[in-house]
Amino acid sequence: MNALPPRAHAHAVVLRRIGIDTYHEPVIYLRRDCHVVRSEGFEAQARVQVQHDGRAIVATLNVVDAALLADGEAGLSEAAWRQLGAKEGERALVGHAPPVESMRHVRAKIYGNRLGEAALREIVHDVVTGRYADVQLAAFVTACADQRLDLHEVLGLTRAMIAVGERIDWGREPIVDKHCVGGLPGNRTTLILVPIVAAAGCVIPKTSSRAITSPSGTADTMETLAPVDLDSAGVRRVVEREGGCIVWGGAMRLSPADDVLIGVERALDLDSEGQLIASVLSKKAAAGSTHVVIDLPVGPTAKVRSFEGAARLKELLEAVGQGVGLEVRVLLTDGRQPVGRGIGPALEARAACAVLRRAPDAPKDLEERSLTLAAGLLVVAQGLAPDAAALRARELLESGAAWRKFQAICESQGGMREPPVAPHHAEVVAERAGVVVAIDNRRLARVAKLAGAPLAKAAGVEFFAPLDTRVEPGQPLFAVHAEAPGELRYALDYARSQADLVSIEEPR
Amino acid sequence: MNALPPRAHAHAVVLRRIGIDTYHEPVIYLRRDCHVVRSEGFEAQARVQVQHDGRAIVATLNVVDAALLADGEAGLSEAAWRQLGAKEGERALVGHAPPVESMRHVRAKIYGNRLGEAALREIVHDVVTGRYADVQLAAFVTACADQRLDLHEVLGLTRAMIAVGERIDWGREPIVDKHCVGGLPGNRTTLILVPIVAAAGCVIPKTSSRAITSPSGTADTMETLAPVDLDSAGVRRVVEREGGCIVWGGAMRLSPADDVLIGVERALDLDSEGQLIASVLSKKAAAGSTHVVIDLPVGPTAKVRSFEGAARLKELLEAVGQGVGLEVRVLLTDGRQPVGRGIGPALEARAACAVLRRAPDAPKDLEERSLTLAAGLLVVAQGLAPDAAALRARELLESGAAWRKFQAICESQGGMREPPVAPHHAEVVAERAGVVVAIDNRRLARVAKLAGAPLAKAAGVEFFAPLDTRVEPGQPLFAVHAEAPGELRYALDYARSQADLVSIEEPR
Repeated sequence: MNALPPRAHAHAVVLRRIGIDTYHEPVIYLRRDCHVVRSEGFEAQARVQVQHDGRAIVATLNVVDAALLADGEAGLSEAAWRQLGAKEGERALVGHAPPVESMRHVRAKIYGNRLGEAALREIVHDVVTGRYADVQLAAFVTACADQRLDLHEVLGLTRAMIAVGERIDWGREPIVDKHCVGGLPGNRTTLILVPIVAAAGCVIPKTSSRAITSPSGTADTMETLAPVDLDSAGVRRVVEREGGCIVWGGAMRLSPADDVLIGVERALDLDSEGQLIASVLSKKAAAGSTHVVIDLPVGPTAKVRSFEGAARLKELLEAVGQGVGLEVRVLLTDGRQPVGRGIGPALEARAACAVLRRAPDAPKDLEERSLTLAAGLLVVAQGLAPDAAALRARELLESGAAWRKFQAICESQGGMREPPVAPHHAEVVAERAGVVVAIDNRRLARVAKLAGAPLAKAAGVEFFAPLDTRVEPGQPLFAVHAEAPGELRYALDYARSQADLVSIEEPR
Repeated sequence: MNALPPRAHAHAVVLRRIGIDTYHEPVIYLRRDCHVVRSEGFEAQARVQVQHDGRAIVATLNVVDAALLADGEAGLSEAAWRQLGAKEGERALVGHAPPVESMRHVRAKIYGNRLGEAALREIVHDVVTGRYADVQLAAFVTACADQRLDLHEVLGLTRAMIAVGERIDWGREPIVDKHCVGGLPGNRTTLILVPIVAAAGCVIPKTSSRAITSPSGTADTMETLAPVDLDSAGVRRVVEREGGCIVWGGAMRLSPADDVLIGVERALDLDSEGQLIASVLSKKAAAGSTHVVIDLPVGPTAKVRSFEGAARLKELLEAVGQGVGLEVRVLLTDGRQPVGRGIGPALEARAACAVLRRAPDAPKDLEERSLTLAAGLLVVAQGLAPDAAALRARELLESGAAWRKFQAICESQGGMREPPVAPHHAEVVAERAGVVVAIDNRRLARVAKLAGAPLAKAAGVEFFAPLDTRVEPGQPLFAVHAEAPGELRYALDYARSQADLVSIEEPR
């Protein structure tokens, strides 16, 4: 935030905290008759630079009536307060924000030109320093969406996103890591494999994302069990002690640009191959990882639907990984249905804990996937043969060593806690007898989101009917959990309007 | 705004006008501890539906502290007040906004699919009823930018934009019209040719745009001379009386979708071929025109830079015109330099009036372009031979008939007035002797915009040095006009940093 040049012709104002939360976009409130608005000719929606104590931020102007502010005062939204770090009643200078020069690169991309690495660095720098308004962020995200970035652009974006964040040096190798390309509800293997490989003696400083368009990210799920907002020093302490952690990458500012872009992708419900790769690999590189295993589920309603698409993504991930000094191995996995039993932060946390605690009703599919990935990491990190790695992983899980390690990690991250339970739930039942032949992951995820996940931690879907399940009329297919009655009704209305969310055919 | 379905599970609130102007995006302010936020699980930046007296709008949620609102109250931004039409203290129902279903079409377009006509109708309907948040509008505009829409998509968008607005039936033919594809500063021929052809007995109900990315639109320029915000009835009255008018299309809601999209295009400084065509032709068709002449300037720094690009645009304009029942004739014109002497609303208005009033220093280039286009309209509308049409147009201008008609049109639109004069100006001078060999229209336009145009009506650039002008060191090339000292300095700083804004070469 310190990188903006000072502007000439700025005017002094007294800062007032007027208590308006505009989410991540900083807003400044100035009176219509204020001398700053008059003499600089501002209009509503103009971009204003605010300077205070050597720091400068750019905020969107909202114009207010005289009743809200005294002459010479400026109000700031909560996001602007956070960015500026000023105190109530302190003075600041406000003036025209400088034009966002890097938007010319975004326009050039929209007009069909390739983005060079220097251009991407300028854009990412301006994104991180808050110079982009929300509509400009949306234009950049849209211009890069789908497969609009080629290998060189993705590499440039990844490098730019690494460059603007912190980077951890662990002083040793290998540092292993794992990532799952989203789209498969409930696939929360991280909570199981991290304690397994850490118990095996590997170093796995796992940083995860919050949800982009899904009902929960690993960080959202883990947060129901332990704090995940650790800074770099905190992560280092946990990893030095336990060999592994499961934290939110955003709090460490490992890829601060990604955190801004993800907010806009979420609002647009838009996925982008290039930004996905840059997001994943910039976080891995910044976290100091050297070897990364990536779980890439493929299925008709997973994020990646075709083997052609998966093969392309695998190739790009491995190539960009090489370009930023990471050995990346991508495993294509079955993505036809949800994993485990829970969808949504707390429900997924309970499923993962059931596997770790060796509960009799623990979901077997979640256990098997976790063991496969854990074995893959042991091959990479410890040079074990595949068979030996698989045996070792299973032994660490079944002996309870992984569960003890998981509890130790939670305590080390700030204390283990019980995931919340939703006060409201209702079941959706089969309307006829038959066999489950298809499940729409996307619409099932949408039900969980409409129920309030991931912001409502206890909300989501508890799923009872995996592929090939025989059901009778009236038998529950899934239950919707919500923290508020309005959200429960909203999600149920949607779920009950979607006939083939779970497809049932009569047995032949 | 009446087309949104009522939502179940809405909560009653008392509406408060808290006096915050958020420009065109409606915002609702709710307390963090308010029962609505709690029971529905809202978070900042959520989209909220507000229902009042049979009307429903969608607003972005800002969460506020208890000090600003009492329990059970909701604040609305000025844009939300305008859309909802409620009174202070009245009750409204607030609840989750329904998901914007048509965004799936926008995502499909981003992912490379074509937009069908039904999809475009859904999108345009949702845009006009305010269901799109600013970031969603930005994604749609970006997805359609440059040449991303093919002929069928442009035709579909044009039809959809006509369908959501009003359409005037004049009960006779031909109704003639004219449009200039922007990018050429000062090219304000409309103010001259409309009175010429109206004085010749044609019917020309001219509706114009405000600026998108330029320092002034024709409506902005005309507004410094007379009111332009007439509704359909007002336009009909003026046209019945005078045969012509020069009004802002937006006030008539002829293409209300365009007015929303233009706001976002302006914020992004982004042009789009498809939206340009749909914008122009939807307004012409909705205005009841049958024959349209389009001025398409081509030059290295005009909006259209190459003859290939111009030929493509001409073809698309004529084909889409045919598809919506318009005879469209596109004239390619010289777009190498500004037209006339003024850039910015009031400065352009003065130049046009100088031509109409036969002032000795009236700019000849503006006069000639206006006569050419006026003659073209007389050929189309009255079946005159080209020579006869040219003579007739010149005669009507030189006799003062056009000036008298222009004054009558201004009076009929609500009263003629004097354009404002900027209180601050400064000259930019030649640094060496030579001949003007090139002018950067775009950067000259940017100087005018930085000086405050089009929002500051008197602001802009007065241009003294057309191509082939011989200049001496210290001779003024142009003057910057501004309404505020901050804006004057801002524009001058930029102008003086751009060495080849006006290129001067030594005579050989």
